[in-house]
Amino acid sequence: MSQQESMAGPNWEDDFNQLTPSEFFRKNKQMLGFTGKIRSLTIVFHELITNSFDAAEESGILPEINITLDRVDKEHYILRHSDNGPGIPEDYVMQVYCQMFAGSKFRNIQSRGQQGLGCSGCVLLSQMTTGEPARVISRYRENGKIKGIKMTFKMDVKKNIGMLMEKEEFEADQTGACIELQFKEVSYSMAEQGAFEYIRRTIIGNPHAKITFRDPSGHKYIFKRAADIVPVLPKEVLPHPKGVSADDLLFMAKHTDKRSYKSLLTSSLSRMSAKRVNEIQEKTGIDMKKRPKTMEWEEAETIVKAFKEMKFMAPPTDGLIPIGSEQIEKGMKQILKPEFVATITRKPVTYQGGVAFIVEAGIAYGGNSGRVVNEQRKSEIMRFANRVPLTFDQGSCAITNALQSIEWKRYGLKDLDNSPVTLFVNIISTQIPYLSTGKQSISPEPEIVQEVRQATMDLARKLQKHIRSKKAAKEKAMRSKIFEDYVPMIIEEAAKLGETAVPEYHEVLAKVTKRALAELLGEKVEEEVEEVVEEAIIMEELDELGHEVQEEESNLRNTKQMTFD
Amino acid sequence: MSQQESMAGPNWEDDFNQLTPSEFFRKNKQMLGFTGKIRSLTIVFHELITNSFDAAEESGILPEINITLDRVDKEHYILRHSDNGPGIPEDYVMQVYCQMFAGSKFRNIQSRGQQGLGCSGCVLLSQMTTGEPARVISRYRENGKIKGIKMTFKMDVKKNIGMLMEKEEFEADQTGACIELQFKEVSYSMAEQGAFEYIRRTIIGNPHAKITFRDPSGHKYIFKRAADIVPVLPKEVLPHPKGVSADDLLFMAKHTDKRSYKSLLTSSLSRMSAKRVNEIQEKTGIDMKKRPKTMEWEEAETIVKAFKEMKFMAPPTDGLIPIGSEQIEKGMKQILKPEFVATITRKPVTYQGGVAFIVEAGIAYGGNSGRVVNEQRKSEIMRFANRVPLTFDQGSCAITNALQSIEWKRYGLKDLDNSPVTLFVNIISTQIPYLSTGKQSISPEPEIVQEVRQATMDLARKLQKHIRSKKAAKEKAMRSKIFEDYVPMIIEEAAKLGETAVPEYHEVLAKVTKRALAELLGEKVEEEVEEVVEEAIIMEELDELGHEVQEEESNLRNTKQMTFD
Repeated sequence: MSQQESMAGPNWEDDFNQLTPSEFFRKNKQMLGFTGKIRSLTIVFHELITNSFDAAEESGILPEINITLDRVDKEHYILRHSDNGPGIPEDYVMQVYCQMFAGSKFRNIQSRGQQGLGCSGCVLLSQMTTGEPARVISRYRENGKIKGIKMTFKMDVKKNIGMLMEKEEFEADQTGACIELQFKEVSYSMAEQGAFEYIRRTIIGNPHAKITFRDPSGHKYIFKRAADIVPVLPKEVLPHPKGVSADDLLFMAKHTDKRSYKSLLTSSLSRMSAKRVNEIQEKTGIDMKKRPKTMEWEEAETIVKAFKEMKFMAPPTDGLIPIGSEQIEKGMKQILKPEFVATITRKPVTYQGGVAFIVEAGIAYGGNSGRVVNEQRKSEIMRFANRVPLTFDQGSCAITNALQSIEWKRYGLKDLDNSPVTLFVNIISTQIPYLSTGKQSISPEPEIVQEVRQATMDLARKLQKHIRSKKAAKEKAMRSKIFEDYVPMIIEEAAKLGETAVPEYHEVLAKVTKRALAELLGEKVEEEVEEVVEEAIIMEELDELGHEVQEEESNLRNTKQMTFD
Repeated sequence: MSQQESMAGPNWEDDFNQLTPSEFFRKNKQMLGFTGKIRSLTIVFHELITNSFDAAEESGILPEINITLDRVDKEHYILRHSDNGPGIPEDYVMQVYCQMFAGSKFRNIQSRGQQGLGCSGCVLLSQMTTGEPARVISRYRENGKIKGIKMTFKMDVKKNIGMLMEKEEFEADQTGACIELQFKEVSYSMAEQGAFEYIRRTIIGNPHAKITFRDPSGHKYIFKRAADIVPVLPKEVLPHPKGVSADDLLFMAKHTDKRSYKSLLTSSLSRMSAKRVNEIQEKTGIDMKKRPKTMEWEEAETIVKAFKEMKFMAPPTDGLIPIGSEQIEKGMKQILKPEFVATITRKPVTYQGGVAFIVEAGIAYGGNSGRVVNEQRKSEIMRFANRVPLTFDQGSCAITNALQSIEWKRYGLKDLDNSPVTLFVNIISTQIPYLSTGKQSISPEPEIVQEVRQATMDLARKLQKHIRSKKAAKEKAMRSKIFEDYVPMIIEEAAKLGETAVPEYHEVLAKVTKRALAELLGEKVEEEVEEVVEEAIIMEELDELGHEVQEEESNLRNTKQMTFD
């Protein structure tokens, strides 16, 4: 370390450095989300759970995770995290857990992780705070057999690789991965941004998963599956021509093994047939038999310009697997016990021209919706990306921006902040545009913001009807109350005046009241209520019949509405 | 590119990749701040200006920057940015502009850039959107002579290095660096988040700099220096023992060329004398003559624990160079023309145990303070880190958190959002804890949030006095008005009653009013006003005399208050 004072600028030879990604993030761990004791531990849970879910689902396995967190000392914990996924082959274990920017997540496939940073970030934090190695047990399939391996290793941050300390093979009968890490300067908490709440939200977004968690006090929580759905395998989807830039195309051309522009285009892009390539050749005059390595910027730009002018089928969306509005509803009902819930999964659309995404949303009202702050119930926003809860940095997020831009007063919520409301939004895409390496907020791409607005406004309209009809019912009840209070008085007074005994009127009154009230007193109120109820029923029926519900601004893929009174 | 559908998890050999930092950020350019057309161009300005300032100041040069932005086509621009800094030696030009995580900014020195990402990010964006190379002219000192070199190059993102295309040496007579880059899909704007506003704010935070900017319409703006201060050279400061973790110490030990724990500690840490090392040896029982390479985690942890228990002088702060409250005041007055401004530079304190930082703040009220939104004047927050304006992602930032936590009502601002107020905060540190690679927001470390609160509340108290005295003056004026309106009527009516002519009273009345009003009518009001004014004068005098102004919660290093009526 040079002690000299810089008097005339940097001493280039001494001061100029190239850092490895590990070194960089060692100096900037807050960029991986590791800021604050509670938050840091939550991020560790987030990264490990995320990784286990992705691994299991890519192999068609229903994810099941076991986590135990032991407190060794104040702010010193041992975390054991194991899953039932396919395991990691021996040669890749240290790459997965020690090399930053390394991973299998860089394909165009819907996955929770995207960066090859998460797991190695956890190992880095463990090593930085305790100096302890990571201990991994991996059971994986190789040549038709299951192999077991136990490895103990540290991370060499100067080289961005793992350093093996111990290794042991063993017999195994089922696949899975298990990691044990120690942490200091972190804190387990039941707070909104704590690890426990993170698991709870994970289950809302992933009702097909099972998580068993033993907390530091020894209490064991079992989050059961809400449904035994066989998970759909996510598919790798080729990029859509409309979502590709000249730079992307040039990059593909420089690093392909294809022999011609034609085979490059048809093999690298979706919706690109030989016929379309011929069209491009006609349109641009560029010979599609040329070798990709010869491609220059101008050609790439001309071809991409042609893409923009041509019509293509929308991007394939079978690679996108939403939670589904019914599942979201189940999850929200199970956890929030609301008096009203409505959910929606919208049709796939695209951002940046050709990257497909789906927005799902839910609104829950009443019951345990919202969160309790200082004994007051406030509204809460639950943000998800590819089913992963986003817990931090909500300020800059597309989801927050969209929800804040809605005029909630128009939907009968005069004071959203202080209402018992939970807003749920999940964004599904093969490429979530995260704003930072901490993956906690989504870039406010205009199309994403617009979709979130649309989805939520559709639901807000339903909530408004619910609130209105609840109000009407309340008014009606109040008027009945007056009727019921006064009729007996009139009867009794009448009896006195007529000097007869008071007749047994209660049963009759109850019957009459029921029938007569609507006609006699509730005329105006009754009409309003009926109108609202009828509309709601029609909508539900239409929906059940599979008809598309036509509403202003509506573009629903699937919509569900439930009221509990 | 593999087209196969993944049926049983990733195909490790095909799918597992190690990305270079350049490849990673090519896929995630939003993490460098490149989202949106306006914002992307602002970030480019930000990175290049930042880099020029750092380079000039480290060499003791008053920074002077020339920028021209030409529009070639809609959303296609050519940017030329040149500075009067020390230039870059030929061998380092492509490293500075093409290698990510490479730079001279990783020392413990106050600099605007910290990451070795900014300049290469700009080159990456240029290449991604236009395919054009970067053109750099560097004039630098070598063996007592000034050498000139023109280089044209592209970035090889797969390798994270530059690819030279052309090179030419030339004769030069003064140092400096100039870069020309082309961009598409960006947009020049006068909006709050646009490039022009960025320059304007830069000048507020850097009144010693000169920037000449020719915008796409050909209009030339010259932002002159507010003062010809010779800039203080920032010093590299060794880390303070209290701010060092066991991992840091171990890292130092593994990568040092020192021969003993003792020489390692004294050469790597500030406030660490031979005497203190002996104390540590006594305290821990660890032999300080041991070779650093032999250090294990337990020893490092024991030594760091000893650091925490020992008393050390506070971190050296001569490496921290604040703007200074007078300079901030000049900058705010020049640009905002406010009716009131107060500024403060607080004493250095530390976060995370031992990282020194200084908070500076300013409040401007009235005039052009705040910003105009839909013809309404709203308050605005100007955030700075090491004098660099932070324009985006304010939601999660320590500065925003701190300002939002202040109860503005207590300071007479019932509706801060709709008040003509500009709040200025600058945080100075050798290590700003940025939340993301885009460097737009600061991690809300409790000590930083607290300092920003304190600084701003001190100023808010002064603003409150100003608003109060303004209100009192207004009331007084209203009462005078009544006096002036009624006295003539009384005189005229009296003349009628006495059947005499109306005397020429105007001149006399004016004189009398002036003197008498205070005594006759304004008693109560007058007292209040005088009290406030006197206090303000006393404070100014005290300040001018260099006395420390004692106030509740005040811990001022330098404070200035000015009122313009």
